[in-house]
Amino acid sequence: MPIEQLQEILIDIHPYVTSIHLREKQKTARELFQAVELLSKNIPLSKLIINDRVDVAFTTRAAGVQLAFHSLGPMIVKKAFPQLKVGCSIHSKSDGEKALRDGADYVLFGHVFPSQSKPGKTPKGIKELSRVTLLDIPVIAIGGITPENTKQVSQAGASGIAVMSGILDSRDPLLAVKAYRNALKDGDGKK
Amino acid sequence: MPIEQLQEILIDIHPYVTSIHLREKQKTARELFQAVELLSKNIPLSKLIINDRVDVAFTTRAAGVQLAFHSLGPMIVKKAFPQLKVGCSIHSKSDGEKALRDGADYVLFGHVFPSQSKPGKTPKGIKELSRVTLLDIPVIAIGGITPENTKQVSQAGASGIAVMSGILDSRDPLLAVKAYRNALKDGDGKK
Repeated sequence: MPIEQLQEILIDIHPYVTSIHLREKQKTARELFQAVELLSKNIPLSKLIINDRVDVAFTTRAAGVQLAFHSLGPMIVKKAFPQLKVGCSIHSKSDGEKALRDGADYVLFGHVFPSQSKPGKTPKGIKELSRVTLLDIPVIAIGGITPENTKQVSQAGASGIAVMSGILDSRDPLLAVKAYRNALKDGDGKK
Repeated sequence: MPIEQLQEILIDIHPYVTSIHLREKQKTARELFQAVELLSKNIPLSKLIINDRVDVAFTTRAAGVQLAFHSLGPMIVKKAFPQLKVGCSIHSKSDGEKALRDGADYVLFGHVFPSQSKPGKTPKGIKELSRVTLLDIPVIAIGGITPENTKQVSQAGASGIAVMSGILDSRDPLLAVKAYRNALKDGDGKK
């Protein structure tokens, strides 16, 4: 999706989301920097989380960085850039334990349900999510989350949800975001 | 080349070179970080320059970062990380003027001669190098440089040379480095 198109959608929806995670794995540092500069005209930097590129997150003054296994380690990043919020993408409870020990601020766990972006891969499921949320760190659930299954996710102890296609591929992204928000409120049992 | 093999070569040659530029464009941030950690057991960090990844350069305490067109801009990097030496890869005098204005510490200009790593691309040539070295910034020449043509490069005003295959593909990298050094001394006319 061209960044200008993403911007149009984000202008509408950003008041209803906590964070915006810019994945954009194919973009160069220069392109990512320019994308953040553009988005920050309309969206608070305090909501922007950059994928992998700690240098881009730091120099753009984005809120934080989302680290994958192939990224710099969270302990190294936290030590060098204490002002950045650091999230770790995890796939198991033991990944989560490591992220917690290493000082991550939150973890992104998934994919919880079958997901278009992970074709053929077995989802982790709600039961595994419930095990991960026992850890003393906020867990954001990702993967195949719909307004219909959000309540389950929330009741499994997730502190939040991360949604891409469920919003960006929707005919009305703002309506979709609101549906997710309502579902989150409904499921606000365990947390 | 596996990093362990590179390390073996660098252990021999590092006393004879000013800087070691880790290109490794395919490596992830995690892999690059680990490579620098490994290399730094035998090679002073003050000689290591990391390609593109400012975050890796900063967190490993490498000497600096080599920025391409697709990287973060030198002005942004210098401002956020004043302790890093910043080099810019350039292909023209006007690129060099921009790098100078943006506070780069040096430029890497090339490719000067036909190079295996740039097949089919017209080299910039010695004449263009001579124009670039008129700028008030150190110019490191790159591309197809051999001990035989080093004197020309030096006399065209280059402050140094950057060599990859001429050393790493050589049967005796240490001997190759020494041949380049001798050629540099010979050509020490203009600078």
